[in-house]
Amino acid sequence: MSDDAALLFANEAFYHAFRTRDLAAMERLWSAHPSVTCIHPGWRVLHARDDVMASWKGILDNADAPPIACREPRGHIHGAFGLVLCYEVIGGSVLAATNAFLLEGRDWRMIHHQAGPCELKPAQLVAPDPEPMQ
Amino acid sequence: MSDDAALLFANEAFYHAFRTRDLAAMERLWSAHPSVTCIHPGWRVLHARDDVMASWKGILDNADAPPIACREPRGHIHGAFGLVLCYEVIGGSVLAATNAFLLEGRDWRMIHHQAGPCELKPAQLVAPDPEPMQ
Repeated sequence: MSDDAALLFANEAFYHAFRTRDLAAMERLWSAHPSVTCIHPGWRVLHARDDVMASWKGILDNADAPPIACREPRGHIHGAFGLVLCYEVIGGSVLAATNAFLLEGRDWRMIHHQAGPCELKPAQLVAPDPEPMQ
Repeated sequence: MSDDAALLFANEAFYHAFRTRDLAAMERLWSAHPSVTCIHPGWRVLHARDDVMASWKGILDNADAPPIACREPRGHIHGAFGLVLCYEVIGGSVLAATNAFLLEGRDWRMIHHQAGPCELKPAQLVAPDPEPMQ
């Protein structure tokens, strides 16, 4: 797998964990570094891994939250650092997101996430690839 | 100057260029890499340096824009990659921001910026240090 494909795969793993409310997967895909960071929409900045993971537990435990989908992910690699920028569709709204990763061994691990509201409508985004035939 | 101080200095240079509408300084402090990226509040994602710099020209040329102030910047260094997370106070509103930098030679150069609305009020933020006595 190319570096770029591996980076986008890590980004997709993040949204898969988000969509399936899989806190254990979310724990694994974030770096173990104590100062990973996160800015959820509207929230104050979270600067410590414990606070970031506690925030994900609260979000993933909320059974009423609408499902999330990632659209138009694009990766930018700078050495051992990777940025994926994408849109999130959630409850009929669009957010724009920054997902930052570090290459740790062979794996891209998340070190930062920010999402915030975007003026686009879901219909203005490129449709996702269809699911492969079974 | 320590790495951490140099990273925060680069972040302050970004807000100084923003505040003083100094497009030439903004050009210099961004990396020359063609795929630097930016997510302005509400905007679609910008993926190319030309588009990012054109967006800053439009913003800095707007003489009616209220002044911007940076509050509570905190840096996180991962090798040659640095993240500064902070709040922006602009027109009585607070935004939360991600500013990403790469160490190029001895200088931290910006490679990505995202800002989005935050629920905090300006009075809830730590006041800036007073200006030094002349």
